Amino acid sequence: MSLEQTIAQMQQQMSDMQREITRLNDAAEVRKLHHKYGYFIDHCRYDETVDLFDEEEGEVYFLNGVYKGRAGITRLYCDWFRNMFTRGVNGPIPGFLLDHFLSQDIVDISEGGNTAWVRARCIMMAGYHESVENLVPEMPRSCWEGGIHENTYIKKDGVWKIKTLNYNMLWQADYAKGWGASDVHLLPLTKTYPEDPSGPDYLRDAIPPTWPNTRHVPYHYKHPVNGKDVPYGE
Amino acid sequence: MSLEQTIAQMQQQMSDMQREITRLNDAAEVRKLHHKYGYFIDHCRYDETVDLFDEEEGEVYFLNGVYKGRAGITRLYCDWFRNMFTRGVNGPIPGFLLDHFLSQDIVDISEGGNTAWVRARCIMMAGYHESVENLVPEMPRSCWEGGIHENTYIKKDGVWKIKTLNYNMLWQADYAKGWGASDVHLLPLTKTYPEDPSGPDYLRDAIPPTWPNTRHVPYHYKHPVNGKDVPYGE
Amino acid sequence: MSLEQTIAQMQQQMSDMQREITRLNDAAEVRKLHHKYGYFIDHCRYDETVDLFDEEEGEVYFLNGVYKGRAGITRLYCDWFRNMFTRGVNGPIPGFLLDHFLSQDIVDISEGGNTAWVRARCIMMAGYHESVENLVPEMPRSCWEGGIHENTYIKKDGVWKIKTLNYNMLWQADYAKGWGASDVHLLPLTKTYPEDPSGPDYLRDAIPPTWPNTRHVPYHYKHPVNGKDVPYGE
Repeated sequence: MSLEQTIAQMQQQMSDMQREITRLNDAAEVRKLHHKYGYFIDHCRYDETVDLFDEEEGEVYFLNGVYKGRAGITRLYCDWFRNMFTRGVNGPIPGFLLDHFLSQDIVDISEGGNTAWVRARCIMMAGYHESVENLVPEMPRSCWEGGIHENTYIKKDGVWKIKTLNYNMLWQADYAKGWGASDVHLLPLTKTYPEDPSGPDYLRDAIPPTWPNTRHVPYHYKHPVNGKDVPYGE
Repeated sequence: MSLEQTIAQMQQQMSDMQREITRLNDAAEVRKLHHKYGYFIDHCRYDETVDLFDEEEGEVYFLNGVYKGRAGITRLYCDWFRNMFTRGVNGPIPGFLLDHFLSQDIVDISEGGNTAWVRARCIMMAGYHESVENLVPEMPRSCWEGGIHENTYIKKDGVWKIKTLNYNMLWQADYAKGWGASDVHLLPLTKTYPEDPSGPDYLRDAIPPTWPNTRHVPYHYKHPVNGKDVPYGE
Repeated sequence: MSLEQTIAQMQQQMSDMQREITRLNDAAEVRKLHHKYGYFIDHCRYDETVDLFDEEEGEVYFLNGVYKGRAGITRLYCDWFRNMFTRGVNGPIPGFLLDHFLSQDIVDISEGGNTAWVRARCIMMAGYHESVENLVPEMPRSCWEGGIHENTYIKKDGVWKIKTLNYNMLWQADYAKGWGASDVHLLPLTKTYPEDPSGPDYLRDAIPPTWPNTRHVPYHYKHPVNGKDVPYGE
């Protein structure tokens, strides 16, 4: 091999390595972005949460509603959640707990390097202390929630942002009763914006089943060993 | 240094870097494999779970039983769990919860690069809703389980597979009573296959203690600062 | 470009890549260090816990107390916790549960590469079984604790160690009552060492609020999209 060929080959190897390093860094950044989202919503930082989304392409799937773009996402977090949970305060308030424990992430970066997917779990421990007035009529004083995120992220100008936050709330339980004797307390949405001023842009055709029903949350990946799609089924 | 020496040195550095990148990628793959395992068992995807194991060397340590190879692992997941938990359905069924929240992973890759170890935690929230018939006689309607995985993985033909799933169930609790007033409801195994058609290949000599007893789950690593082995008992 | 220039440029690229690889490895090491800390304290391995800290610069923020250096940290883990929780045993004892589930880590490495920060969540499930004598008078038989770590790590002679363990205990709850009807059972410290033989070196000026009060736990990072500091109070 000529010297020129050797150097060209080395440059190609270096380019391949750099791409792998970039993917590793990207996966770490996206994972941190998801966790930062979690800390913001724990502490009722709704303005900061909205800023994590891509302004144009950002969207949230929550219950059977879809909230589109900056306006829709602001309605969800600032108009609905902030008014419901903290009566308009952008930050934690006394006697209100909303801890989301995020774990079990599976982060994948697209071939092109500008899209990412995260599947992760969420356990929520929430409620309000007996010393405060009932903040949320529907919510038990102490409650559980279990769900799965299957989110999409997008990299623009070198910055990762949330594109689709697809949160699949699967079950909720009154702490006093446990999941064996509870149904979900958060019911499907029935109205869209502007009829509901903090409502979603549209409702999904089908209402995703919730506890005591169960459902498959589709994976963004194939089976890691046999390479097959995992069927939906029962 | 001659040009040839310079280039040889650069090639060596590149080779070292590539090995480090491969290890980082391998650690990420193994971590994802563990989490994918978790989502499959959450959703009672037992066929897909079995396919995560190496066909020949795969094995599971569960309670005091050891299940060897494809046949043994199929007995555990498909013959025992699938019949017990979902009455033969390969997927989630209404009113049955079996969420495993996996976290706190410590992933290490062997020097050779084809073996990996994962230590990780598992909290299980399980049970069946009051609207369904009692599916599992021994299981409380809502219950907890805490455990530690100390697993081994193997890379064959570029694909990571589970070699040894060593799940150490440490405690269980009836939700209504809490861990302060509960003993484990899952008792040690007493029979092997074929006497028990879904039984393990063999029983371990000693029954691993469970709550209210406690035990040391050996680490696959040494102390990260002082470099010593961590001793066993008190 | 001359051959020499080409090679110099390649060497620079390799140096940049090596630095990125080192940072990825460092982030993985620091994350594992945090998780190893968690397994040690779960299993009441207090001697091993103390050895995770830098001997000179190590410190712990716990409640409103600060424990400095090897001597202070030993007072906290060995003199206080080990005597309180396990009556002097360095390891798990029958009937005592102290599981810390660590998750949602955000690991960042400094520009210089020798300092690291970790934000992470902790759910604690603790208590003592009814079959044993009451080990800790203040502790409910089964209890919860939620908190956030915002720790600093330091790399010396190639080994990562804990510099500042800043654990922010935010809420505790009696299992029987849930967080809606519980206050914290662990109260602020009132004495320092040597008046309290296992006390902290000093007390912080302000007592960090705990449940049913809430508080902001400052982030070691800026907002990942808008780049702003996240403001404190409401």
